[in-house]
Amino acid sequence: MNVYKRLESLEIAHSELAIPAASYVPFVRSGDLVFLSGHLAKKNSRIWGGRLGDGMTTAQGAEAARAVAVDLLGTLHNAIGNLNSLSRVIKLTCMVNSTLEFSDQHLVANGASELLAEVFSERGAHARSAFGVAQLPLGACVEIELIIETKPVRYLD
Amino acid sequence: MNVYKRLESLEIAHSELAIPAASYVPFVRSGDLVFLSGHLAKKNSRIWGGRLGDGMTTAQGAEAARAVAVDLLGTLHNAIGNLNSLSRVIKLTCMVNSTLEFSDQHLVANGASELLAEVFSERGAHARSAFGVAQLPLGACVEIELIIETKPVRYLD
Amino acid sequence: MNVYKRLESLEIAHSELAIPAASYVPFVRSGDLVFLSGHLAKKNSRIWGGRLGDGMTTAQGAEAARAVAVDLLGTLHNAIGNLNSLSRVIKLTCMVNSTLEFSDQHLVANGASELLAEVFSERGAHARSAFGVAQLPLGACVEIELIIETKPVRYLD
Repeated sequence: MNVYKRLESLEIAHSELAIPAASYVPFVRSGDLVFLSGHLAKKNSRIWGGRLGDGMTTAQGAEAARAVAVDLLGTLHNAIGNLNSLSRVIKLTCMVNSTLEFSDQHLVANGASELLAEVFSERGAHARSAFGVAQLPLGACVEIELIIETKPVRYLD
Repeated sequence: MNVYKRLESLEIAHSELAIPAASYVPFVRSGDLVFLSGHLAKKNSRIWGGRLGDGMTTAQGAEAARAVAVDLLGTLHNAIGNLNSLSRVIKLTCMVNSTLEFSDQHLVANGASELLAEVFSERGAHARSAFGVAQLPLGACVEIELIIETKPVRYLD
Repeated sequence: MNVYKRLESLEIAHSELAIPAASYVPFVRSGDLVFLSGHLAKKNSRIWGGRLGDGMTTAQGAEAARAVAVDLLGTLHNAIGNLNSLSRVIKLTCMVNSTLEFSDQHLVANGASELLAEVFSERGAHARSAFGVAQLPLGACVEIELIIETKPVRYLD
């Protein structure tokens, strides 16, 4: 299935290229791999602040992670020109702004992982790490970085 | 030396494929590289919970990291079919569940690094990062992810 | 421009190969990629201890990150023989020893990112993640790891 049609059926508008908060770029390609910078969770185009375990539920964290995944798709679209040319999502790393007690980082990360599976099917299955951090840039609740693979062969829809 | 014979001499039974705690896969291959998901420390097949610096010693942390490395070998065996075809351990990242005071994350990580050196000799020497996190999924004391390289050339034993 | 001449104009002496604090190596090459271990901030050859948000300012943190970048250049020089053969800085990960309140990890990381841009120009533009950790090995204030790409084609100066 065409990835853009799937995004449409999920009612997801792939977003504009995320502007990094500082002196770096949103993605870099090396060979078949594309490395995407850590993207911070946003809500209505503003940083989605908060800490899991302190007034923010696991469900809200998963929602924030899903929002980051949508932004990563936007960056990816700009990086590789056509999301259908993605051959595999390789590795996702999810940093969760956590209290010292909150230990459901994996459930928060699922918000992003499940979206990638919905959009890319078996090509979306990825290796992953998730962990709780003391704090994130601008107080964001979730930060996610991604490595994907893209092959010269194009998907024909 | 054959890696499986070395595991036998170390009395290490390479474990079954670790089942991820959530919606992702234990490893993904891209070209010559295999990316292994963050693996959580386990003891007797259950999550090895705890925080370094709070009732858990550096030696116990290193033991937990070694246990994670054993599980990573199990995943690796499933990923590449034959551990002898590993050409190099590339990068290990060790997340240590730490109090704000505990600063021996490098000694904890050594538990894993030293096992990889014992098993793979010079092919086991890897780049590494270790740091203290606020909390880990399911309250695990240590999480480790790995990148390895495997070449088409097979080791002949 | 020749990278070594640029280092000279910035009055940066590329340092000696950093000796890892434990049982691993400073870098590993795989294909065109070189993975550099997490390097800890140092001042006068000693660990630069401290925590951002607790008696250490963002400007001091950025200075520490710049110092780590200088050490990474030293390791890189040893890794690839000639810094002019670097084709692209791929990915920088910056772990900042942070209080639960400090949220300027991106500004700290800029200290390293900006040095790489000064030294390598457009080849220095990289993907990046920055986040706050509970604690770092030996109490260091900043740890940075790097992935770079080097191509067989040599830069002619």
